[in-house]
Amino acid sequence: MKTNFTFQNPTKLIFGKGTIANLAQELPKDEKILVTYGGGSVKQNGVYKQVLQALQGFNYIEFWGIEPNPTVETLRKAIALGKQEKVTYILAVGGGSVIDGTKLISSAIPYDGDAWELVLKPAKIGKMLPFASVLTLPATGSEMNCGAVISNAEKQEKYAFYSSFPQFSVLDPLVTFSLPDFQIACGIADTFIHVLEQYLTVPDESPLMDRWSEGIMQTLIELAPKVTADKTNYEAMAEFMLCATMALNGFTAMGVTEDWATHLIGHEITALQDITHGQTLAIVLIGVMKVLRKQKRAKLLQFGARVFHIVEGTEEQRIDTTIVATEQFFRSIGLATKLHELNIGAETIQAIKDRFLKRGTHLGECGNVDGMLTEEILNECL
Amino acid sequence: MKTNFTFQNPTKLIFGKGTIANLAQELPKDEKILVTYGGGSVKQNGVYKQVLQALQGFNYIEFWGIEPNPTVETLRKAIALGKQEKVTYILAVGGGSVIDGTKLISSAIPYDGDAWELVLKPAKIGKMLPFASVLTLPATGSEMNCGAVISNAEKQEKYAFYSSFPQFSVLDPLVTFSLPDFQIACGIADTFIHVLEQYLTVPDESPLMDRWSEGIMQTLIELAPKVTADKTNYEAMAEFMLCATMALNGFTAMGVTEDWATHLIGHEITALQDITHGQTLAIVLIGVMKVLRKQKRAKLLQFGARVFHIVEGTEEQRIDTTIVATEQFFRSIGLATKLHELNIGAETIQAIKDRFLKRGTHLGECGNVDGMLTEEILNECL
Repeated sequence: MKTNFTFQNPTKLIFGKGTIANLAQELPKDEKILVTYGGGSVKQNGVYKQVLQALQGFNYIEFWGIEPNPTVETLRKAIALGKQEKVTYILAVGGGSVIDGTKLISSAIPYDGDAWELVLKPAKIGKMLPFASVLTLPATGSEMNCGAVISNAEKQEKYAFYSSFPQFSVLDPLVTFSLPDFQIACGIADTFIHVLEQYLTVPDESPLMDRWSEGIMQTLIELAPKVTADKTNYEAMAEFMLCATMALNGFTAMGVTEDWATHLIGHEITALQDITHGQTLAIVLIGVMKVLRKQKRAKLLQFGARVFHIVEGTEEQRIDTTIVATEQFFRSIGLATKLHELNIGAETIQAIKDRFLKRGTHLGECGNVDGMLTEEILNECL
Repeated sequence: MKTNFTFQNPTKLIFGKGTIANLAQELPKDEKILVTYGGGSVKQNGVYKQVLQALQGFNYIEFWGIEPNPTVETLRKAIALGKQEKVTYILAVGGGSVIDGTKLISSAIPYDGDAWELVLKPAKIGKMLPFASVLTLPATGSEMNCGAVISNAEKQEKYAFYSSFPQFSVLDPLVTFSLPDFQIACGIADTFIHVLEQYLTVPDESPLMDRWSEGIMQTLIELAPKVTADKTNYEAMAEFMLCATMALNGFTAMGVTEDWATHLIGHEITALQDITHGQTLAIVLIGVMKVLRKQKRAKLLQFGARVFHIVEGTEEQRIDTTIVATEQFFRSIGLATKLHELNIGAETIQAIKDRFLKRGTHLGECGNVDGMLTEEILNECL
């Protein structure tokens, strides 16, 4: 460990079968609770019924309709409702998008201006309402971190935003059994690439953090075929759910250099073309690995050796094989790894390049991924 | 992941060079602080000077003399001082013993009865004073968990005790440079065996927790020769310090079955013969592995394969080789692995057996380690 760091993660994790009922003990009794939801899948999979059961006797109101890649336009309605009803606590019931949106709602209800100002200038965040979550889709890690990603539909923009941690999060793996296969695949890719964003940078910063990152990725590779074969395999789905939370709660990020170029390029594809987040990452990562193979050389070799057991051949051959193995992993879970498979072409690449050049964007662990390099990366993904 | 679990660890970790100065920002301004210390080594290694510097302007008093394996007899004096001076916050400056002792002090100052009652009956713990720590010896993990081990000198007893987490802990690896070699070796053994107590039990409970446990042990094996060769190697000492904290903060214990027989037998050796905790563990573990090799078979094979790369030979041979490799690891850092090296013989074994039979003790993940089996284990350690 070379670098100083500060770590704290106060979220209480309540994990396992039947734990939604624990809401009754965990939620504060004397608060006015706003319960936030997505589009309504919780009404089909039994989650809503369990939540209502646990909420008996609590003082709560509901807000429905936080969409994937939650937009400030939708969230403004929840914020207005929360102000009007004087809510003092929020319970998010949904996937990463509902929890992300709830983080903005919790910051914006006590704020006098418009919520988008908080996304653009987090320094304006003052008091925040406490909130908790019932997670329904393992992917983003939002259930145990303080980050969120908020979109602006009008401006076709999507930005990361940091507020505070959920007080507690309930993770019942049973709720994942009814997820669409594509959502599960995107969740696995999102989890895998969260780890890589914290790992595929500078070598020898912390041997322990490296081992823990590799441990998550090894586990994902082992469980992916089980999950793909049978998404009602409780042990495999539960392990996936645990991996997703552990991949972005700071446990693997102590004192290490992070990247996040893949995510930030992926956000632009989602903002412009409405492609699911995890799917964009599976494509962009391959381009990033190819274009930045010199910069990421030592970590690519370590990743290949320890995660995919690639130890034969020259170093260049091993890096090639590692990139192929990564791409094959994403394909094995049913994701596309090329832009043309999603009918995305040169026009979108040009738009992202122009945006990055206009904004003066510089991404990645070396700050060298600008509009020009992003174009090169995305051209590798065509 | 098969089993339901709840996880929460709110301690803020402040890690790195020069971080003792951060006390000035982290400590609450309006509290009456009791600062607790061990025997005075902090006066030699510069820690005390840095703490005093940071405490300028705070309202504090000091208590000196919390010994290794802190006794309730010593702690009663600190508790009396704290009550008399109406302290409202405690800062522990020292190793695991000072932090452990501080956990009892924090529970006992607001308590009307005798502190030993809280050790024997934790249900009696009510209000606790908040506390924080400056860690000087990586080993016990007490800086980021809610456990403590308290001794009773009069009764020659030593028991685990659970209270609350430090609000924050400052870990500056520079303070470890002046530690005696033997203390460092004991700290490495303690850390390694904390991991094994949470790992060497039931197979296939959580692939991720297994990987993380193996990751800590692999890292310790890699850094041990560096630390032994040069204890002023900052990166290696810092990584050791990180490993020690991560080995017992719950991060590797989610949903897995734990053992703790080695610790609880080791505590008896310390209570009766005043042997340093980590040294007792390095001896007892080898006996536990030998006597419980059938019960721990699957995990012993996995441990050997993944941590020591032992994959040749029959399964029985691999287990033999794994036990030898573990013993060699402890010897390589300068620890004894047999009781006779410490002049401990049949008399102490008999005393521990008698105590366990009298108390009706049943330890380990199967609850089968009673007085008789403990005798068998310790006879293997002679």
